[in-house]
Amino acid sequence: MTQFDKRNLSMMIDLYELTMANGYFVSGVNNRAVFDVFYRRNPDGGGYAIFAGLAQVLEYLENMHFTKEDIDYLRGLQLFHPDFLDFLKDFRFRGDVYAFPEGTVMYPGEPCLTVVANLIEAQLVETAILAQINHQSLIATKAARIVKAAQGRSVADFGARRAHNMDAATYGARAAFIGGVNSTATVSAGQLFNIPLSGTMAHSWVMFFQDEFTAFKTYALLYPKNTTLLVDTYDTLHSGIPNAIRVAKEVLAPRGQRLQAVRIDSGDLAWLSKKIRSLLDDAGLTDCKITASNSLDEFTISSLLAQGAKIDSFGVGERLITAKSEPVFGAVYKLVAVEHDNKFLPRIKISENPAKISIPGFKAVHRIFDSSGHAQADLITLFHEKLSFPCQFVSPYQPWKLRHFHNCTATTLTKIFLRGGRRVQPVEPLQLIRHFVNLQLTNHIWPEEQRFENPHIHYIDFSPALWRLKLSLLDNCQLNCFS
Amino acid sequence: MTQFDKRNLSMMIDLYELTMANGYFVSGVNNRAVFDVFYRRNPDGGGYAIFAGLAQVLEYLENMHFTKEDIDYLRGLQLFHPDFLDFLKDFRFRGDVYAFPEGTVMYPGEPCLTVVANLIEAQLVETAILAQINHQSLIATKAARIVKAAQGRSVADFGARRAHNMDAATYGARAAFIGGVNSTATVSAGQLFNIPLSGTMAHSWVMFFQDEFTAFKTYALLYPKNTTLLVDTYDTLHSGIPNAIRVAKEVLAPRGQRLQAVRIDSGDLAWLSKKIRSLLDDAGLTDCKITASNSLDEFTISSLLAQGAKIDSFGVGERLITAKSEPVFGAVYKLVAVEHDNKFLPRIKISENPAKISIPGFKAVHRIFDSSGHAQADLITLFHEKLSFPCQFVSPYQPWKLRHFHNCTATTLTKIFLRGGRRVQPVEPLQLIRHFVNLQLTNHIWPEEQRFENPHIHYIDFSPALWRLKLSLLDNCQLNCFS
Repeated sequence: MTQFDKRNLSMMIDLYELTMANGYFVSGVNNRAVFDVFYRRNPDGGGYAIFAGLAQVLEYLENMHFTKEDIDYLRGLQLFHPDFLDFLKDFRFRGDVYAFPEGTVMYPGEPCLTVVANLIEAQLVETAILAQINHQSLIATKAARIVKAAQGRSVADFGARRAHNMDAATYGARAAFIGGVNSTATVSAGQLFNIPLSGTMAHSWVMFFQDEFTAFKTYALLYPKNTTLLVDTYDTLHSGIPNAIRVAKEVLAPRGQRLQAVRIDSGDLAWLSKKIRSLLDDAGLTDCKITASNSLDEFTISSLLAQGAKIDSFGVGERLITAKSEPVFGAVYKLVAVEHDNKFLPRIKISENPAKISIPGFKAVHRIFDSSGHAQADLITLFHEKLSFPCQFVSPYQPWKLRHFHNCTATTLTKIFLRGGRRVQPVEPLQLIRHFVNLQLTNHIWPEEQRFENPHIHYIDFSPALWRLKLSLLDNCQLNCFS
Repeated sequence: MTQFDKRNLSMMIDLYELTMANGYFVSGVNNRAVFDVFYRRNPDGGGYAIFAGLAQVLEYLENMHFTKEDIDYLRGLQLFHPDFLDFLKDFRFRGDVYAFPEGTVMYPGEPCLTVVANLIEAQLVETAILAQINHQSLIATKAARIVKAAQGRSVADFGARRAHNMDAATYGARAAFIGGVNSTATVSAGQLFNIPLSGTMAHSWVMFFQDEFTAFKTYALLYPKNTTLLVDTYDTLHSGIPNAIRVAKEVLAPRGQRLQAVRIDSGDLAWLSKKIRSLLDDAGLTDCKITASNSLDEFTISSLLAQGAKIDSFGVGERLITAKSEPVFGAVYKLVAVEHDNKFLPRIKISENPAKISIPGFKAVHRIFDSSGHAQADLITLFHEKLSFPCQFVSPYQPWKLRHFHNCTATTLTKIFLRGGRRVQPVEPLQLIRHFVNLQLTNHIWPEEQRFENPHIHYIDFSPALWRLKLSLLDNCQLNCFS
C-alpha cells in the first residue's frame, strides 16, 4: 500500500496541539476538561446550518493511535519529552463525546459537539474534529439551500473534479446527500455510503464519434432504458436537439423505449431550456426531461426558475462541492470548563467583540417547540439542569427581562455518543439522517428562517443559571485580568 | 484497517466515465486518444497560476486498479456488461503522460498535462487527475500570491481545521509549500512531505491555567529557546503584552534566553501591532518578533503592510487552505485527438463562447525567453514541430499578422513522465519544486504579470501549423454540424 491509498488521520493534527499536550504532560497536569465545538455565523447569510460529519468524527476518535513510525517522526522534531513520546505509544481516546444527532438543524453559538476528556486527549483531537465538522456541515448546509431552490426538482452532485482533493469529493458527496441532494456522480461515495449514482456522457463521447448522431445512437443502443443525451457539444438547437429527436424516433421508438432526458451544460440555460422544451414537445417528446448543469447554485437555480426555465433536474458541481460563495465553515473548539476536585470550573474567553465571548461551562442545548410543532427557540442550559414548563429563560438581547416559555414542548438536542471512548449510541444510517433533515425543514423549522434574503434569526436563549454564570465570570475576569 | 484509514482512489471516478468506458468496450472501439488538461481563467483575476499536484497524479495512475469488492459493487449497479467488469479486474493504466514539470508557472488555455492512452483508460482517469490538479494548483497559486504580499516576511499555513477534510489539509499544505509558504502547522504534511512545522499555543493553554502569567511562564520554561506567546486571550495591551514582557524578564532572561515572538489573533492587527512594537521596544525586547493571524490573505496582508503594521510573520489559515476568495480552479479534461490508422486525427469542441472552443490536436508548449531572461510569451505547437529562430507565430488576437520571435531562446515545457504506464522521469523533490517556483517568479516572470490589480496578460501564441489546423476544423464543423 502506498502513501496514496491510506490516510494517516492520527497525525492530522496541528503542531501546537502536540506542543501543548507535551507541556501538560511534563507539567504533570491532566485534569478533565470540557471543550465545545460551535460556529459563529451561518454561511451565505442564511438562517441555519446542518450539523454533519459526526459519524466520521466518532470513527476517528475510536481509531486514533500513533504508530512507531509516527513517534519516530515526532522524536526527530526534538520538541518532545521522551516520556511524552512513550505515552503516545499507548494513546487512545477515552473521553466522552456529546453531540447533536447528525443532520440536526443548528444555529450560531450553540455547542453542537462537546468533548469531555483529560486535557491531553481533548487537546489532541481538536483539528481532526473541526476539519470533519467544518467540511461536512458546510456542504450539507449548501446542499440544503440548493435543494430548496430547486423546488422539488431532482438535484445531483457532479462536483468531484473541482473538489479540494479526494476526501472532499467523497465526504462532500455524503454531506450533500444529507442536505437533500438526490444522487451523486462520485462512485466512491456511492460505494462507501450507498448513495444513488447518476451520470451519463461527457462531451468527449460525442466528440469521439465521427458525428453527433452516431454518438447518440450508440449510447441509446447501450442504455435504451435510461438514455440521457448531452446536446451542447456542437450547437444545441441546430444539431444537438435535432439529433436527439432523431434518436428518439429512429432508434428508441422502434424498440418501444422513450428518450429519458437531454442535458445542457452551456449557453443561456433559461432561454435554451424553453426553446428545447418547445422543440421536444413539437416532436411529441413531451415526457423527455431537460436536465441542466454549469456553475449552478441556489442563486442561479432560483433565478432560472423565476425566469420560467423549463428544467426538470439539475446537476450541481463546483459551487456545491466547494460551497463557492462561502467556502469556510468557521466552527471553533473552545475550552469551557476544567475539573478541579470533582467539579467542573467554568472558563471563558474574552474578546473585544462581544459576539466572540465564549459561553462558559458544561452545557446542553434544548429545542423548544410551540403548539404548532415549530421550533420557537433553542435554550442553552447547564448540563444537569432539568426543564419544566412554564420554563424561565433569559434572552441575551434583552437580559433585563425575565421571560417564560408557555405551552411548549422541548427536545434535548445534546446526546451522548461516546462514554470513556466507547460508543454508547450509534449514528443513524445515512438515509435516515437525510430524512431527518428533510423532516425538520418541512415541519419544524419556520420557512422564514429558510429564505435566502434576510432570514428570521432563530432565538438562542439561556437558562437563568447559565446567564448568571456568564455574568459572574465576566465580573471576575474584570477583576483579575484588567486590574 | 477501517474505512477511515484508507482511501479508495481507483473508485474516485465519475459514473459517466464508467458508462462511457463500458460503451466503448461493448462497441469494440478502443482507439488511442489524446486528452488535454487546461484551465480557462487565473484565480482572483491574477496573471498566472502554479501547476501543482503532478506527483500525486502519477502515483495515482501507477497504482490504479479495481478490487474484487469494487467490481462486485459495480456489478450491483446493473449498468455494465459482464465482459467489461472482467476487463476491469486486470485494468492497469498503460498510457503516456506528458506534463509541465511540477511548479511551472502556467497560463489559461495551455495543456499543462496531456494523456495519450487507449480511449477507455484515458476516460477512466479523468476525475482523479482533475481533482488533484485543480486542488493543488489552486492552493499553490493562492500561496504564491500570499507570499508575494508578505514581501519577504515568513508565512505559515495554519489552515487544517478549515480545510475541506483531511486530504485538503495535507495536500493543501504540500501545495502551499510549493507556492512559497515557509512552514505548516499540519503534522501529517510535515511527516509525509518533510515540510518544516510551526505552531505554538492555543487560547485553551492560556485559559487552562489560573492566570495568564502562569500560562506564559509554564510555556517559556518548557520551550525556552523558541517561546512564542499568544497574547490576546484576555486583553492584548493591558494583560497579554505586560505578562509576556514579565516572562521575558523574570523567566527567560535569567536563563540567558530571549523571548522569540508574540502572536496576535484578533483585534485591529495594524493598530495593535504598532502599539505592541512600541511596548516591546520600550521594554528592551527589540528582537522579539510579532506574528499575526486571523483571516489573512494577500489582500489583508497587503493592506496591513501598506498601513505600516509592525508584523514580522503571518499565520494564514482558512483563506489559504480554501482559497476563499475564489475556491474553484476550473481545469478541464478535453479530447483533442483520436488515432485512426496510426495517425492522430484532431478533435475540437465548439462553444457559443469563442474562448471555450478547444485547441485541437496533440500539442506541446514552449516558453519563449527574451534576452533579459524574461518569459516573453508561450508558444503552443503541434507536438512534433521543431522550433528554430527566428520563429514564426500567430497571435490569436491578431491572426492576420505573421509575426516572428527574434533574439529569443525557448524551453519546451511539455515533458514526458509516463510511457506505457511506466515512469520515465521522476518528479523533483518538493524542496526543488518550491525553489523552482521562486526562481521563475523572481527571475523569469515579469513583475507586471504578478501584480494583483489588472496584471499584464501573458501572450499565448500558436505555431502557424496549429493555427491552420484549428481554422480547418472550424470550417469543417461549419459544414458538417450546422448545415
